[in-house]
Amino acid sequence: MDRQAMIDLINLSPCISFTLGFCLETSFILVNLLYKGIEKKTAKLQGSEKAVVARHEAGHAVVSTAVANLLPGGQPRVEKLSILPRSGGALGFTYIPPTNEDRYLLFIDELRGRLVTLLGGRAAEEVLYSGRVSTGALDDIRRATDMAYKAVAEYGLNQTIGPVSLATLSGGGMDESGVALWGRDQGHLVDLVQIEVKALLQSALDVALSVVRANPTILEGLGAHLEEKEKVEGEELQEWLKLVVAPKELAIFVRGKPLLPLQAGL
Amino acid sequence: MDRQAMIDLINLSPCISFTLGFCLETSFILVNLLYKGIEKKTAKLQGSEKAVVARHEAGHAVVSTAVANLLPGGQPRVEKLSILPRSGGALGFTYIPPTNEDRYLLFIDELRGRLVTLLGGRAAEEVLYSGRVSTGALDDIRRATDMAYKAVAEYGLNQTIGPVSLATLSGGGMDESGVALWGRDQGHLVDLVQIEVKALLQSALDVALSVVRANPTILEGLGAHLEEKEKVEGEELQEWLKLVVAPKELAIFVRGKPLLPLQAGL
Amino acid sequence: MDRQAMIDLINLSPCISFTLGFCLETSFILVNLLYKGIEKKTAKLQGSEKAVVARHEAGHAVVSTAVANLLPGGQPRVEKLSILPRSGGALGFTYIPPTNEDRYLLFIDELRGRLVTLLGGRAAEEVLYSGRVSTGALDDIRRATDMAYKAVAEYGLNQTIGPVSLATLSGGGMDESGVALWGRDQGHLVDLVQIEVKALLQSALDVALSVVRANPTILEGLGAHLEEKEKVEGEELQEWLKLVVAPKELAIFVRGKPLLPLQAGL
Amino acid sequence: MDRQAMIDLINLSPCISFTLGFCLETSFILVNLLYKGIEKKTAKLQGSEKAVVARHEAGHAVVSTAVANLLPGGQPRVEKLSILPRSGGALGFTYIPPTNEDRYLLFIDELRGRLVTLLGGRAAEEVLYSGRVSTGALDDIRRATDMAYKAVAEYGLNQTIGPVSLATLSGGGMDESGVALWGRDQGHLVDLVQIEVKALLQSALDVALSVVRANPTILEGLGAHLEEKEKVEGEELQEWLKLVVAPKELAIFVRGKPLLPLQAGL
Amino acid sequence: MDRQAMIDLINLSPCISFTLGFCLETSFILVNLLYKGIEKKTAKLQGSEKAVVARHEAGHAVVSTAVANLLPGGQPRVEKLSILPRSGGALGFTYIPPTNEDRYLLFIDELRGRLVTLLGGRAAEEVLYSGRVSTGALDDIRRATDMAYKAVAEYGLNQTIGPVSLATLSGGGMDESGVALWGRDQGHLVDLVQIEVKALLQSALDVALSVVRANPTILEGLGAHLEEKEKVEGEELQEWLKLVVAPKELAIFVRGKPLLPLQAGL
Amino acid sequence: MDRQAMIDLINLSPCISFTLGFCLETSFILVNLLYKGIEKKTAKLQGSEKAVVARHEAGHAVVSTAVANLLPGGQPRVEKLSILPRSGGALGFTYIPPTNEDRYLLFIDELRGRLVTLLGGRAAEEVLYSGRVSTGALDDIRRATDMAYKAVAEYGLNQTIGPVSLATLSGGGMDESGVALWGRDQGHLVDLVQIEVKALLQSALDVALSVVRANPTILEGLGAHLEEKEKVEGEELQEWLKLVVAPKELAIFVRGKPLLPLQAGL
Repeated sequence: MDRQAMIDLINLSPCISFTLGFCLETSFILVNLLYKGIEKKTAKLQGSEKAVVARHEAGHAVVSTAVANLLPGGQPRVEKLSILPRSGGALGFTYIPPTNEDRYLLFIDELRGRLVTLLGGRAAEEVLYSGRVSTGALDDIRRATDMAYKAVAEYGLNQTIGPVSLATLSGGGMDESGVALWGRDQGHLVDLVQIEVKALLQSALDVALSVVRANPTILEGLGAHLEEKEKVEGEELQEWLKLVVAPKELAIFVRGKPLLPLQAGL
Repeated sequence: MDRQAMIDLINLSPCISFTLGFCLETSFILVNLLYKGIEKKTAKLQGSEKAVVARHEAGHAVVSTAVANLLPGGQPRVEKLSILPRSGGALGFTYIPPTNEDRYLLFIDELRGRLVTLLGGRAAEEVLYSGRVSTGALDDIRRATDMAYKAVAEYGLNQTIGPVSLATLSGGGMDESGVALWGRDQGHLVDLVQIEVKALLQSALDVALSVVRANPTILEGLGAHLEEKEKVEGEELQEWLKLVVAPKELAIFVRGKPLLPLQAGL
Repeated sequence: MDRQAMIDLINLSPCISFTLGFCLETSFILVNLLYKGIEKKTAKLQGSEKAVVARHEAGHAVVSTAVANLLPGGQPRVEKLSILPRSGGALGFTYIPPTNEDRYLLFIDELRGRLVTLLGGRAAEEVLYSGRVSTGALDDIRRATDMAYKAVAEYGLNQTIGPVSLATLSGGGMDESGVALWGRDQGHLVDLVQIEVKALLQSALDVALSVVRANPTILEGLGAHLEEKEKVEGEELQEWLKLVVAPKELAIFVRGKPLLPLQAGL
Repeated sequence: MDRQAMIDLINLSPCISFTLGFCLETSFILVNLLYKGIEKKTAKLQGSEKAVVARHEAGHAVVSTAVANLLPGGQPRVEKLSILPRSGGALGFTYIPPTNEDRYLLFIDELRGRLVTLLGGRAAEEVLYSGRVSTGALDDIRRATDMAYKAVAEYGLNQTIGPVSLATLSGGGMDESGVALWGRDQGHLVDLVQIEVKALLQSALDVALSVVRANPTILEGLGAHLEEKEKVEGEELQEWLKLVVAPKELAIFVRGKPLLPLQAGL
Repeated sequence: MDRQAMIDLINLSPCISFTLGFCLETSFILVNLLYKGIEKKTAKLQGSEKAVVARHEAGHAVVSTAVANLLPGGQPRVEKLSILPRSGGALGFTYIPPTNEDRYLLFIDELRGRLVTLLGGRAAEEVLYSGRVSTGALDDIRRATDMAYKAVAEYGLNQTIGPVSLATLSGGGMDESGVALWGRDQGHLVDLVQIEVKALLQSALDVALSVVRANPTILEGLGAHLEEKEKVEGEELQEWLKLVVAPKELAIFVRGKPLLPLQAGL
Repeated sequence: MDRQAMIDLINLSPCISFTLGFCLETSFILVNLLYKGIEKKTAKLQGSEKAVVARHEAGHAVVSTAVANLLPGGQPRVEKLSILPRSGGALGFTYIPPTNEDRYLLFIDELRGRLVTLLGGRAAEEVLYSGRVSTGALDDIRRATDMAYKAVAEYGLNQTIGPVSLATLSGGGMDESGVALWGRDQGHLVDLVQIEVKALLQSALDVALSVVRANPTILEGLGAHLEEKEKVEGEELQEWLKLVVAPKELAIFVRGKPLLPLQAGL
């Protein structure tokens, strides 16, 4: 991945942030855009890959919509789906615009909703292709892992770990100017954190599967439509997504009290 | 975070310190100021974020006041609350001035009081929004982790660990000139320290929740007022805070004997 | 190994990829070509080494064909076998061309099929020489380990590990620009991943042995023919390979649901 | 801490040492001086901090005297106490001059006596303020940890560890020129060493508490006098200290056989 | 050791290899030559050292011959023994020429035979001097460890470990160009590998002892002759070695199926 | 310690070695000389330090003599004792010349004898001062640790560890040119090695104590004489040492079969 290009794009962002606590909404979009790059005219998806990518993006769109339906108003909505590969290397993308108002914080239900959304693509592949999933979720998994790790190890959003900053603790505290010292995660807390992160991601995938299974017609219809048209947006897209339903599992996961401690576990 | 900017500001501090043992009071303020940066005219909090940040700051103010009421005289008092975002990225701040006299030491009850104060923002979110907490406590958690780590691993304030400097021990002692060698925390003591730090932070959050729950009217009233006015200070602020009460849990936690050893634990 | 030469060759590839998720098909070929180098006129295999290398390559060809027979259409087919050592150091190669259509994704059954194919050379040595195997599988083992590791630790294709990116988690998440931080795998998840990777590779070798044992005549015949002629391709090669059969074990392994969790295990 | 300044001061020392085995007496003073810096005219301790620092230094003086009374003749005696903060950042100091004769070795009873002396300041705070200790013992704890670590891991003064150099062992031996290789402590011996160091420091603190409790009048009297006068030295100081008594626990700890192995322990 | 000199010599080798999988035969010789350096006229072994070195080299020769007798034809045979110290620092050497044909692979029985040969020198010392062994086997042990490690951790020749490349797995896979990433061995697989390598080396030494014990007359006679003449080669050497017998233990070890998994073990 | 000075001195050595396997005898002396530096006219030991250093050196001399008496002829004998401090920092030294013949190997009994000799100084302090030992054995302990580590981890002289090179194994083998790769000791073998090294050093100290206790008159007499004269050498020294007796424990330790495996242990 072209790190400089990514940084350049982010620097163009109107949102000046210095911690991940702010602007996540925007950087989420930025990263999306970045990964997707500029539309690449010379390459086209074909055959089964085209079909899979279309359904993968439809999965993100369906789950994102189900999540937005459950959360308080003002949640950003999917605006565009595309499976025209871009020079950046991405095969398709789901565009979710920034909210109308500037956002600086992420609430715990929004964060959990994003985890489910990020895994919605893989869930769609799993359900529609009976487990014949692809390597296409690589980047989604990386971003979900990053988000889950920060929720547990830095934002204090996990009850088992509590209000602890693992990076600060592993690094032996901050130096005299208040800057966190360089450190590498270590000690038994690393294992506790990894157990919680793994469990959180597994739950998010399970919930994404529930959402996908609750919306089979939309998923297949929107996926097939996207496979044919290569882009779906505007009114047409909203027609598909307005029928999305959110299963009970999603509501429980997203609205749940701060992440509950695991029972025993590994 | 702009490390140079942070260091520059700190260098302007009238307090010349070379260990964290001195000037904590001042650097506490400095870091606050630094994080808050210069007031940023171009951005404004809106909607639910504005409401949450106001109550988060009110939480810090209420807990800080309850702590000061319990401790010996001369404790610094909150002077100003603001939710005008600053260019540094902070969304709000609670200003506590340096004490009238120069301070070089921190007593164990003051240190424990600060831990509770740092987690007062998150506690307010937890109570007022029924667990729908935000990512806004990231920096509070980092600083609380740093303080708890140093209390346990460097200041000898934990009975289980005793008078041991983990950094010195992990680094294989100091060199011939008395300078601690570079080292990375390691060995079984790291695990013991992490268990104690985690327990200390969890207790501090529990106590902060008790303080917040003991002052529901003030918290909501001051929070709503701050949300509307964006700044509260002086007489007006003191009117709100003079009614703050300190629950029994706070007294036990703050005045307790040097941190007791954990029973078994993890 | 000449890293620059390898990179140069890869840069000539028409496939622009930025993650391993895409172009695996092509880089598979590239690496093959690379490892094989340019045909080296000055060196010739002799005696038992020539016999073994011929059968090793025949093993790759037979297993690759059995896998292609089982998978959906459009799978690349072996086009050429050679045991003329090349300046790059390789003693023989099995050439599998890119598919007709550009490929960007790898499906889980294809990935598992490749693992078996990579270990087909060692399996042929094991069976035809009653366990007197050689060091010639070094590179096959490295590439199979790499592929199995990524399947388990990055692509989320293992049910025990789930949708987790080990590199992202070990590195403490990504930085603010979305780039994964440098990190070294650590914590208990490393052990879990190593258990799964080891089990996956062992299974793949067991299945490769089954394929080889199911095709004794072809393996020995093609191997002997290659030993004599030093190159086999085109019509002649297809004559040999059209008789390849795929044992039940291969179908179960390749088509199986996403990698099942291990029972207990180390 | 200004490392260069510290090294400069040490280079002025008349004692040329190349291992910590020699000149400990002197470097002990040097570090003391260094930490204390040049007397700082612009800052003054006030209120409770002044009271605490005075009693902390009195604790060092009382324990040091009790130790010297127990050890063979020629032990250095406290000459001066001060609570005038210095530019180096220290708030007070206890000056113990080099012995009349050059010293190159430290005997095990002297080393153990120093551990108790170093923790005498914290012990005084603990006893006189009923556990309301301060962060002021940070440097004492670091130096005590350093000394205890070297006693156990390098000087072979602990019976459980025996005559082993942990640094040499962890670094994989010395190189051909007899220089110890760079290495980081590792392996199970690190844990054994940490258990012994922790136990040794805890014992030293317990003994320091016994000494302090055995001399309540002197401690409070000398402390109050120092608080008032800010400097106590010469005849006047000796008047106070000549009454110091050494409790039985100190004699047992200091004169004990080489550090006994722990019973089980952690 | 002069690394550049070693590399220079190796670069003169007619065998162009890029992995250890090829040319082991030649590099084995090269390293031998290298370690032995150019014959050094100024130093001579004396007394008991001369006697020991002669018998150490005789041990290598006897074991190497027993191994060659057991393996398929074409195995290289010892051509010369010498105990004239060379400038490179070696005290003696056993010269085994490259095979007549170029060799690129090593078969598992050859590899195991080499392990036994490498430990033949130490075995001879052990038997002839009733356990009064010397430090002279340092380099033999290093090379045997290297070979055993690669057999187990890279060549997939151990059934407990299976077809896994530890370096690739520990390094988190290869990068996009197919190059193995930098990594340090880690995780539980390191322990498994160390158990297997240790067991393999211990078995090889046990077998070497059996070979030495089965040929007492030759060993002592050839050793005494070499001690006297300082060089033994050609017809004369073959006269001694043609009488070498291979005990049953050697045949079992060398011809055994791929290294069997350990029973439990450490 | 001045590393360059040490290397310079060693480079003047007539013995060209490239592994520790050779020239240990000489480098033993070199290091001794080096540590002792040039005689320093400006510093003199006084009082109890002088007495202790004299007896410490006498301890080395007595143990070295007892060891030489037990081993085969040609062992180097102590030639000179001195307690004139040198500029290098050493307080005293025991000079043992190189043997008459060049030595390139160390036999296992010689190596074990050296371990006992190195700890003879500390043993003398322990016995003559009833456990009031000093920090003066720091360098002896480092060198004994280095020697014990290499015996166990590199020279294959420990039966529990066997013929394994820990450095080669931890570093993942050698590279293609036969050079051991950089690596850090790791894995479970590190723990096994540490257990063996610790036990070997503890045994060597126990044996040194036995030797010292078996020669009380010589030790005290020679020590007192050295304390008075500051140098003892030639005829006079031999008069003292010719009466040294070797207790049974020393014979058992030194002549024992290759280091026996520990029973269980730690």
